[in-house]
Amino acid sequence: MPNAVSPRAIASSLTELWSPRVVAELDDSYVKVAKVHGTLTWHSHDNEDELFYILKGKLRIEMEAGAVELTEGEAFVVPKGVRHNPVAEEECHVMLIERKSTLHTGTETTSKTRSVEEQLRPL
Amino acid sequence: MPNAVSPRAIASSLTELWSPRVVAELDDSYVKVAKVHGTLTWHSHDNEDELFYILKGKLRIEMEAGAVELTEGEAFVVPKGVRHNPVAEEECHVMLIERKSTLHTGTETTSKTRSVEEQLRPL
Repeated sequence: MPNAVSPRAIASSLTELWSPRVVAELDDSYVKVAKVHGTLTWHSHDNEDELFYILKGKLRIEMEAGAVELTEGEAFVVPKGVRHNPVAEEECHVMLIERKSTLHTGTETTSKTRSVEEQLRPL
Repeated sequence: MPNAVSPRAIASSLTELWSPRVVAELDDSYVKVAKVHGTLTWHSHDNEDELFYILKGKLRIEMEAGAVELTEGEAFVVPKGVRHNPVAEEECHVMLIERKSTLHTGTETTSKTRSVEEQLRPL
């Protein structure tokens, strides 16, 4: 039987920025948390929607049609195929729900890109 | 483009207990919130995992193998096929991630059971 998890506590404990970690499995999706600060990179996920839920701080999700500013307790779904770039002016802790097939930075690769295997490392 | 949503604010505004409402769509899943107090009913979802995330208060999820006590900010996945019964000794606000095919109380039907159409009513 799975255990209860505290996404907030796990996000707080992370030491590496922009490095999502899997905290639970939900059918064909993963529940992840990340600690972010600064900018990730413009990318899209052609086949998967992506849920952001803000655990602490603020996150701006830039998209070509405009940006969304999220604060603690707010959620936003980036629809599949929509290019986006997450920007955190200050440290932000986020919970993500992503399909298992979702690549961190889509077809882009940067020094921040983390493989699914890296995201699955034990906490 | 979808809007940011505040699951906490929406859950707070609900007037009917045990009546989940859809706040966002995520591929083949819905993000829902509910205000609960008391007991739902023993049931299972044979084909779908179900994520509970506690927005406010406490929730006990009783299962045949034992119960899990969840407090604000904690998450728990009830695996597919596992009979469970959510119990809130005091008012609790919860965010749920469920597949679109998930029935509220599985194959059980009680006066608390809400159809997916009812859960999709505009907020």
